[in-house]
Amino acid sequence: MRSENKLKILNDPIYGFITIPTTLLYDLMQHPYFQRLRRIKQMGLSSLVYPGAEHTRFHHALGCMHMMQKAVQVLRFKNIEISNEEEQALYIAILLHDIGHGPFSHAMEHSIVENVQHEEISLLFMEALNKEFEGKLSLAIEIFKGNYSRRFLIQLISSQLDMDRMDYLKRDSFYSGVAEGNINSERLIQMINVHNDVLVVEEKGIYSVEKFLVARRLMYWQCYLHKTSVGAELLLAKILKRAKQLTLQGIDLPASNALKFFLENSVLKADFDKAVLNNFALLDDADIYTALKNWQFHTDKVLSYLSNAIVNRKLFHVQLVTKEEFNSRLDHYQALCKEKVQVRNEELDYFVFGDKLRNQAYDLKADPIRIITKSKQIIDVLEASDQYNLKALSEPVYKYFICYPKSIHKN
Amino acid sequence: MRSENKLKILNDPIYGFITIPTTLLYDLMQHPYFQRLRRIKQMGLSSLVYPGAEHTRFHHALGCMHMMQKAVQVLRFKNIEISNEEEQALYIAILLHDIGHGPFSHAMEHSIVENVQHEEISLLFMEALNKEFEGKLSLAIEIFKGNYSRRFLIQLISSQLDMDRMDYLKRDSFYSGVAEGNINSERLIQMINVHNDVLVVEEKGIYSVEKFLVARRLMYWQCYLHKTSVGAELLLAKILKRAKQLTLQGIDLPASNALKFFLENSVLKADFDKAVLNNFALLDDADIYTALKNWQFHTDKVLSYLSNAIVNRKLFHVQLVTKEEFNSRLDHYQALCKEKVQVRNEELDYFVFGDKLRNQAYDLKADPIRIITKSKQIIDVLEASDQYNLKALSEPVYKYFICYPKSIHKN
Amino acid sequence: MRSENKLKILNDPIYGFITIPTTLLYDLMQHPYFQRLRRIKQMGLSSLVYPGAEHTRFHHALGCMHMMQKAVQVLRFKNIEISNEEEQALYIAILLHDIGHGPFSHAMEHSIVENVQHEEISLLFMEALNKEFEGKLSLAIEIFKGNYSRRFLIQLISSQLDMDRMDYLKRDSFYSGVAEGNINSERLIQMINVHNDVLVVEEKGIYSVEKFLVARRLMYWQCYLHKTSVGAELLLAKILKRAKQLTLQGIDLPASNALKFFLENSVLKADFDKAVLNNFALLDDADIYTALKNWQFHTDKVLSYLSNAIVNRKLFHVQLVTKEEFNSRLDHYQALCKEKVQVRNEELDYFVFGDKLRNQAYDLKADPIRIITKSKQIIDVLEASDQYNLKALSEPVYKYFICYPKSIHKN
Amino acid sequence: MRSENKLKILNDPIYGFITIPTTLLYDLMQHPYFQRLRRIKQMGLSSLVYPGAEHTRFHHALGCMHMMQKAVQVLRFKNIEISNEEEQALYIAILLHDIGHGPFSHAMEHSIVENVQHEEISLLFMEALNKEFEGKLSLAIEIFKGNYSRRFLIQLISSQLDMDRMDYLKRDSFYSGVAEGNINSERLIQMINVHNDVLVVEEKGIYSVEKFLVARRLMYWQCYLHKTSVGAELLLAKILKRAKQLTLQGIDLPASNALKFFLENSVLKADFDKAVLNNFALLDDADIYTALKNWQFHTDKVLSYLSNAIVNRKLFHVQLVTKEEFNSRLDHYQALCKEKVQVRNEELDYFVFGDKLRNQAYDLKADPIRIITKSKQIIDVLEASDQYNLKALSEPVYKYFICYPKSIHKN
Repeated sequence: MRSENKLKILNDPIYGFITIPTTLLYDLMQHPYFQRLRRIKQMGLSSLVYPGAEHTRFHHALGCMHMMQKAVQVLRFKNIEISNEEEQALYIAILLHDIGHGPFSHAMEHSIVENVQHEEISLLFMEALNKEFEGKLSLAIEIFKGNYSRRFLIQLISSQLDMDRMDYLKRDSFYSGVAEGNINSERLIQMINVHNDVLVVEEKGIYSVEKFLVARRLMYWQCYLHKTSVGAELLLAKILKRAKQLTLQGIDLPASNALKFFLENSVLKADFDKAVLNNFALLDDADIYTALKNWQFHTDKVLSYLSNAIVNRKLFHVQLVTKEEFNSRLDHYQALCKEKVQVRNEELDYFVFGDKLRNQAYDLKADPIRIITKSKQIIDVLEASDQYNLKALSEPVYKYFICYPKSIHKN
Repeated sequence: MRSENKLKILNDPIYGFITIPTTLLYDLMQHPYFQRLRRIKQMGLSSLVYPGAEHTRFHHALGCMHMMQKAVQVLRFKNIEISNEEEQALYIAILLHDIGHGPFSHAMEHSIVENVQHEEISLLFMEALNKEFEGKLSLAIEIFKGNYSRRFLIQLISSQLDMDRMDYLKRDSFYSGVAEGNINSERLIQMINVHNDVLVVEEKGIYSVEKFLVARRLMYWQCYLHKTSVGAELLLAKILKRAKQLTLQGIDLPASNALKFFLENSVLKADFDKAVLNNFALLDDADIYTALKNWQFHTDKVLSYLSNAIVNRKLFHVQLVTKEEFNSRLDHYQALCKEKVQVRNEELDYFVFGDKLRNQAYDLKADPIRIITKSKQIIDVLEASDQYNLKALSEPVYKYFICYPKSIHKN
Repeated sequence: MRSENKLKILNDPIYGFITIPTTLLYDLMQHPYFQRLRRIKQMGLSSLVYPGAEHTRFHHALGCMHMMQKAVQVLRFKNIEISNEEEQALYIAILLHDIGHGPFSHAMEHSIVENVQHEEISLLFMEALNKEFEGKLSLAIEIFKGNYSRRFLIQLISSQLDMDRMDYLKRDSFYSGVAEGNINSERLIQMINVHNDVLVVEEKGIYSVEKFLVARRLMYWQCYLHKTSVGAELLLAKILKRAKQLTLQGIDLPASNALKFFLENSVLKADFDKAVLNNFALLDDADIYTALKNWQFHTDKVLSYLSNAIVNRKLFHVQLVTKEEFNSRLDHYQALCKEKVQVRNEELDYFVFGDKLRNQAYDLKADPIRIITKSKQIIDVLEASDQYNLKALSEPVYKYFICYPKSIHKN
Repeated sequence: MRSENKLKILNDPIYGFITIPTTLLYDLMQHPYFQRLRRIKQMGLSSLVYPGAEHTRFHHALGCMHMMQKAVQVLRFKNIEISNEEEQALYIAILLHDIGHGPFSHAMEHSIVENVQHEEISLLFMEALNKEFEGKLSLAIEIFKGNYSRRFLIQLISSQLDMDRMDYLKRDSFYSGVAEGNINSERLIQMINVHNDVLVVEEKGIYSVEKFLVARRLMYWQCYLHKTSVGAELLLAKILKRAKQLTLQGIDLPASNALKFFLENSVLKADFDKAVLNNFALLDDADIYTALKNWQFHTDKVLSYLSNAIVNRKLFHVQLVTKEEFNSRLDHYQALCKEKVQVRNEELDYFVFGDKLRNQAYDLKADPIRIITKSKQIIDVLEASDQYNLKALSEPVYKYFICYPKSIHKN
């Protein structure tokens, strides 16, 4: 399955080493579609808050593959049969599961590639690669799409305890330095098993699951939903929206060819042919940053004001408010902004805006995390826990916030 | 010295927390000149070899300041007097010591900003900031230039045991995952002292110094001089040289405004006025990557071939050779390349090229690392060590290599 | 406050270094009363379950002092005044807070030194030391007893967020390898402050408190209340009880002089004069292990059977049962045991016994952990949290178990 | 090969988890001969210097087995055939290689069990176990004795790059907190291979070997040969020698039965029958500590003075001297001691004594560490390195020292 020449070991500060298991995986990793992930940060603008969070989607994808190798090893040790073909398909599917992410995904999905989700683009990439690699990705694609007959393989790729989460919580916690999110992925993986074709966690692993869910909750509040970085993301979405608007008005904005394409065209899912995909594959964080740096000097005040805010980290103030006061506070800050920053009515939405945050560590409606007791009973982890602790984690929590320029408080 | 409002704590995966000690330092950090370091990777193209090495010069600068805070604390604990003014100057000088780095510094210094060293540009930035901050950086600049009366303060900023090295060896080792380079910076700093105005290490710290020098040597071979990343850097220097050449020929290459400026102008040190500096301050890794991605499709074969090699990680083969065979091997590979890749004579230097690497962990001719014995004698660390081990580390080692496209070996 | 000669730095795998701040603290550490803690393991018999958990009460005491140094540093940085005398008293009080622990404390307190708690013995030791050190511990003793006027100093020594917990959760998690219990003590300490003489945590630290309480809960289940080590502890208590019983019957058991003293005498708190204290100070883990090794060959079957169970790790089975079935299961196993192991009726309690475990991460009735909001309001952490999660942690959870020899299941 | 019931996973703070691969290994671990290693500290009296160094020979043995599992995995991945029987024999041999250690081995070997080395006793234990386990250890014993036909298997157990060193350097560095000794064992093991039946390291691993040898050198100076702990060890050897002398004179010293046996009998290798072995198996650190605590009050001044020095950490001063001045300094301190501590002539050797330390990181005369180049040449690591650095490490370095009571400097 491997040729010595291509057999590679990569350093990882977290796991020590990541081994590339087969030449096919090596070749997929070498493909420009995958190499582009080197230039897309996993946590987008979070490094504005946590300066260590510079790690890339490339490294995360490798980490997921490593976690999957551990999982296969543990399950086989417990006498669960996984064929060599299935094994490789698992590695491919998890390696490529996020390949459809663009730069600053959340901001992009609400501005540049509207209404196309990154999972859909991942699938498009996989199918394009499957053609190039003469059908060798077919099984991986089946599993990724959730169509394969063996359910636990699908769950390893996508579920509330999948290998994606095993890596990203640990990796994001590691690089951001937010120790509250550190989970013991290897310990958790040691505890998994398969029963009636379904992924389960052995009873003694229940505290590891509890730790994992609590860590997830804390990572959401402290990282993914950190109000400053969520605010920065919204800012970027506003910038891209404005850039698109100006472009539609015929104003030529400096931008890379790839970015220009998406500013000039409204791309729906149906439009995503090979040419569009190749354009998309050329987009990464560098295009955005280069554009923002040019745009900070543009004559359009909205574009330049907001671009400058990100490039030079003059971020907006992000104010938490209650649901009830949301509308009135929004009005209040818009009025203030209009006066202090001298913004026109129709541009106020670019300067004062808000949204809500939602945090739910465990989703009651999704496929549950299952515990297998010593007597081989299967129960939902919420039932297995000894107290209300975990039940509380399944309650979604909402927070509302409003962003506005800090200068509106100045005289 | 601090106003609560600006008092900030930053997360660092290595040290836990970094505290910003004064509002002046906070304000300097907020300046666009410093914020740009967020977009320049500390290890340049090394992430092509070590995917974790994505950390920025911004984070390194903060880490140096943190190490300096430890050093001040240790020295004061040992009754060395350091005034509050000197303390802050130390923090400023170390925070800004690398502010003059451009993106992919080594490649740049041999192509874009020829004959101007990053230390010189750092000083230009500091002086510009000193004007803006009304002279508050004057003492820091004196120390940085090596003009201050108290010698050990200068040594903390720049010497064979300065706070820069304390942070970068540890940080680069941490993020690259090359454990051989991990040093115990805090332990080393615990061991420093001052005697007759000169920085010394207490005798019991001699093994820590030995470990530090060995780690430095290993980091050079495994990271800074890793042949693949050195080869990639040379490749980038060739690309920038070609781009400049084409630009001089009147060919308009797609590039950001800032990059265009440096392609169009030969900038000497004397030319570095405020406007040039501001242009330089707009340059970062994103400009280079965006350009390379555009250039990989350019009609100039040299430009597109080499750009593609970096963007899609189709790096050249890097062959170690002896000093004696260097010239003949270079001729050999150029001939091969001419035939296989169909390169014109005058472009051969862009496709087949070489250089030498130099590794010297401890420089005998520079200001030595001094050990203070229990009887208060000062001796060079080489004399203090119990064996030839350290002496060996002061011998420079050279390696020669040649880079060429992998395709010249194909049929 | 310090003389160079005695100024010491100690290595700690967790914190890197621990500095001894004053000569008085150095001298206290050198005292045989304190040095004995080197021979008492922090987690008693837990190393039978977690082989890394061999760390001593000596090291924990130093770790607490180190945490206290951090706390003092943080509070002073926030302009809370702490005099040098108070500072040293804090270090003394936390260094000595556990000095009254005997070997395998939990087993001892139910057998050898009945009805005298280790806190009381700690106080006796402190008072004896205070005499030797001519009153220099008086302030520390006031704080330890909770009598001092400044309440937050008392809370740093003993509360639901004291420096003892800061160290032991981290240390026990580190050495046992139970990663679920790892807390970020330094981060938590960064967040403390004092308001109206009371210890508070700043609002942004609320997730760190949540993590801390969850970690505490998990450490209880996985370490402190691990059924196997709790079972081993009960076994040891039974052995000591039996040894005392046999001694009362005039049977001379091999034992060190110190252990013999406590086997021969029923020591109440009132009996604890200097001579008794000195005898107690001679007791450590070695006395117990040496005795057990001798006793495993004793003619008394109870003594030898149980001693062998610990020495050679032939631990009893520990069966979790419900509260309701506890009594009937106890009867059942005693009957089985009587038959299979041939135990006499009056000795059955030595072979089959049970107890209940209680886990409550946060005590609603004790002094609460207080959060201070940005508007300087003080609220209980339970109120400050955004969900039921923390409330759940204040519900005590009970588990019942029964221990019996594994051999009763054999034919 | 494994029965689910006995399949166990153990926590290890260093590696995360250690898996017990077969039931035979589980059963060997449960044997009292092996369980006793729980009560013997790996680094003896070093915890008097490094308070974290409380880890046991039990844990080290498990760590070695874990390293061996990694080595087998790596070699098989590189297509080196290792049969299941050989695999298990490797695990057994490395698990038991140190089973013959008594408590405070170095002190013991020069006093209690004179002229019998721990390797010989290890072999005696293995042979006794082989009888009990009906010959299942025969292959392991062959390998341990160096008699097996496949040489690299022997080298994995015992050589300058064996799995013993892989674990102990890492483990001792971890627990002592001496970061200079931290090696990347997993990385090194990734680099091993077998060529012509001999263990080799791949060329790219040369820096890891260099780091390993330097770490070894530093660990010797900072831990194993730390003058304070070497001094404490000599002190203990003196105590045991005195105890034996007094016992021979008919004085009955309090001691456990096992210790008494070795005080009363001069045991040569030929005397080591099953009964002696069983007596030896009862000895551990607890016997020594319990004895020392009793002996500190003995009427024999030598015994009580020295015992008190260890129990209460009133260690002797250890003075480094040159080889030339050794004898004269020894005379000088003996004369001083005679006067100040009032020691009789014939007892002076118990109070003032010295020795030499020897540190050689790499032994030129032993089986070398072999590097395999890309062209499959085998060369000694010294030849493969690019400088004198490694050659220097093969020079033995000697230091001379003298120990004496600190009180001889008082008036």
